[in-house]
Amino acid sequence: MWKTERWFTSPWNFAPDVRKELHFSDRLQLHDVTLRDGEQQAGVVFTWEDKLAIAEKLAEVGVHRIEAGMPAISPSDEKAVREIVKRKLGPKVFAFARCTKSDVDRAADCGVDGVVIEIPSSQHFIEKAYGWSLERVVELSVEATRYAKEKGLYTVFFPIDGSRADFDWFLKLIGTVAREGHMDALGCVDTIGVLSPSSIPYAIRRMKEAVKKPIEVHFHDDFGMGSANTILALAAGADVAHTTVASLGERAGNASYEEVALTLLTMYGVDLGLDYSKIYGTAQLVRKIAGTVDRPNRGITGEGISSIESGIIAAWYKNIYQKEPLEILPYLYSLTGHPETETVLGKNSGIASVEMALERLGMDSQNDALNRELLERVKELSLGKKGLVSLEKFAELAQKVKDRNT
Amino acid sequence: MWKTERWFTSPWNFAPDVRKELHFSDRLQLHDVTLRDGEQQAGVVFTWEDKLAIAEKLAEVGVHRIEAGMPAISPSDEKAVREIVKRKLGPKVFAFARCTKSDVDRAADCGVDGVVIEIPSSQHFIEKAYGWSLERVVELSVEATRYAKEKGLYTVFFPIDGSRADFDWFLKLIGTVAREGHMDALGCVDTIGVLSPSSIPYAIRRMKEAVKKPIEVHFHDDFGMGSANTILALAAGADVAHTTVASLGERAGNASYEEVALTLLTMYGVDLGLDYSKIYGTAQLVRKIAGTVDRPNRGITGEGISSIESGIIAAWYKNIYQKEPLEILPYLYSLTGHPETETVLGKNSGIASVEMALERLGMDSQNDALNRELLERVKELSLGKKGLVSLEKFAELAQKVKDRNT
Repeated sequence: MWKTERWFTSPWNFAPDVRKELHFSDRLQLHDVTLRDGEQQAGVVFTWEDKLAIAEKLAEVGVHRIEAGMPAISPSDEKAVREIVKRKLGPKVFAFARCTKSDVDRAADCGVDGVVIEIPSSQHFIEKAYGWSLERVVELSVEATRYAKEKGLYTVFFPIDGSRADFDWFLKLIGTVAREGHMDALGCVDTIGVLSPSSIPYAIRRMKEAVKKPIEVHFHDDFGMGSANTILALAAGADVAHTTVASLGERAGNASYEEVALTLLTMYGVDLGLDYSKIYGTAQLVRKIAGTVDRPNRGITGEGISSIESGIIAAWYKNIYQKEPLEILPYLYSLTGHPETETVLGKNSGIASVEMALERLGMDSQNDALNRELLERVKELSLGKKGLVSLEKFAELAQKVKDRNT
Repeated sequence: MWKTERWFTSPWNFAPDVRKELHFSDRLQLHDVTLRDGEQQAGVVFTWEDKLAIAEKLAEVGVHRIEAGMPAISPSDEKAVREIVKRKLGPKVFAFARCTKSDVDRAADCGVDGVVIEIPSSQHFIEKAYGWSLERVVELSVEATRYAKEKGLYTVFFPIDGSRADFDWFLKLIGTVAREGHMDALGCVDTIGVLSPSSIPYAIRRMKEAVKKPIEVHFHDDFGMGSANTILALAAGADVAHTTVASLGERAGNASYEEVALTLLTMYGVDLGLDYSKIYGTAQLVRKIAGTVDRPNRGITGEGISSIESGIIAAWYKNIYQKEPLEILPYLYSLTGHPETETVLGKNSGIASVEMALERLGMDSQNDALNRELLERVKELSLGKKGLVSLEKFAELAQKVKDRNT
């Protein structure tokens, strides 16, 4: 489980004491919100053609659902949703809607499979941000969700800021909507990204007890907990994870499907059935279309994760990379379509880095004294320019050092 | 606890059922490894002056310890360690060392308070990457740790790749070193970033049972679990967190101290005693010196987290931002020294965005029909240029729309 031909994680993840606490649903799904919540990231604009291009990629990856936009507020979104529906790409298509009949109508008109119906749900938020009464929230929720059912839509009830509601009031709201309105699934919505990892099993347990419906977790990343919280929620019995590509999203973004899916696959033995080899290419496409960047060492999708500079690591690499690459990697980067590992030359390089670079250039790598002198030159140069030394520059240095010593 | 004047997280985090599972140490410390593991990020080069500048910032933030480098492998590191020690900045200064007497000597010569002594610790890694016998590892570990104690250094025993070791062998190794060698603290080292969040309480519990020593967790971020795993480990009784600024670090980086410290503060009621207002400035400095970037919507340290484009969110913001800003924020961004929240104009803007922009320009914001027309112009322009609309450009649009309608 923890060691296959393509990954090598920790046996501790599979200890019986750990496994006995896991309660995964047998109908896990990814609900991608890149095209809706992702586009809400300030400065990110998707045309309908952009949305279609991303939806096609997500379909290739094999996400189960795509939340394509909010037809009621944007003609461009309406067009995008219609076009994506028309293509029958594979994933179910959802629209996002406010809690009104007309928003539900606009969604239904686009031909979507389901609708995510949002309503504020913490008392303070209802009263302060919306200026509404609690009764109004209950009435609107019951009415809009019943209407969505009448329209034949799979209905996800999405109580915004639920995580900052008093739990008793929250349970009353969702209980009333489940009884008098309608929900096919309930959102556990951490709008502001403020649930601690330790609270997740408790929150999921209480919601599952209150409504016997699938739970869909929607977690934001304000404290960097979005993906881990999603994992913990699924392990506690939640059914659907709302995620985006590489955490694109409003404010501090959303849980990343890459982190969720690969953690499940390699550390929990849970395969979401994706084409994992499409993950890196999809992240690159979305970053390009969104016009955004990420840290080069971002896990899974970062461009620089496969570069090794450190001399200690390079020595390990030299000893084992051909026979046992997984000794220094969590998984083969080819699993996600990422370029393979390579060593680079810089201030932190070691003697093994120099030997490998010489071998790559077809030069003699056996003269230990020359190699050490060359390593010093590489370090000096890297420190001076504050960056890596290219293979071309290294070849020049090597030639100089060699000439001086012959 | 969950709601103060500066933050507003979830009451669910503080439910008795959640709290009763928390077992925090009363001597929690941050051990910053930005200058060592952080610099191992491919392409990142710190001169000794860079290291000193970062150490000074870290001291202002109030981290408890700084691991400043590896004197045995780099003269520049040796210089950096010596200079940082000399400044008596406040944090304890540590050096990183391989498991040899000479590396310990090099560290001690620099005048550090403590040393982190690394040794490979998973059988496969010892045999395949190092080509050593298991006995050799035990012997070297016992000898080097005893020597570090003789030298008067606080000694952290740092068994690399521990998370991929067979647990019984691992316990035997650390038990022998604790008995026959010496350790002031034990590292729980997830070198390859492969521990699942669910395994953390189990791992910490078994280690604490095996050696009655403080546990120092050192987690990497290959699957985006680094910071959450660190939180879970501290909640399970680990004592020290190894972290970097904004996840700088080897391969996919390390746990971020920003995420760890702010999650502890706002969701667990645990204050590490930092000057939180220095957090954003420190991240900016380190990114600049390292010559790296991060996603604009990275939690806590991202440059764009305070920009609101979405019309729905802007409407909330307009209703509450002066009186109740925490209704739409996890914490006031001033807490970390980050610029405050502002609304920006783009494709996803709403009528409230337009009204606020007109108010900011001192123009009439009361004409609903004009506002709606203006909103359409903003959306078209944003979609056309695929980006935000500046306030200057918006002022032009507003004037045109006004002129056409008078």
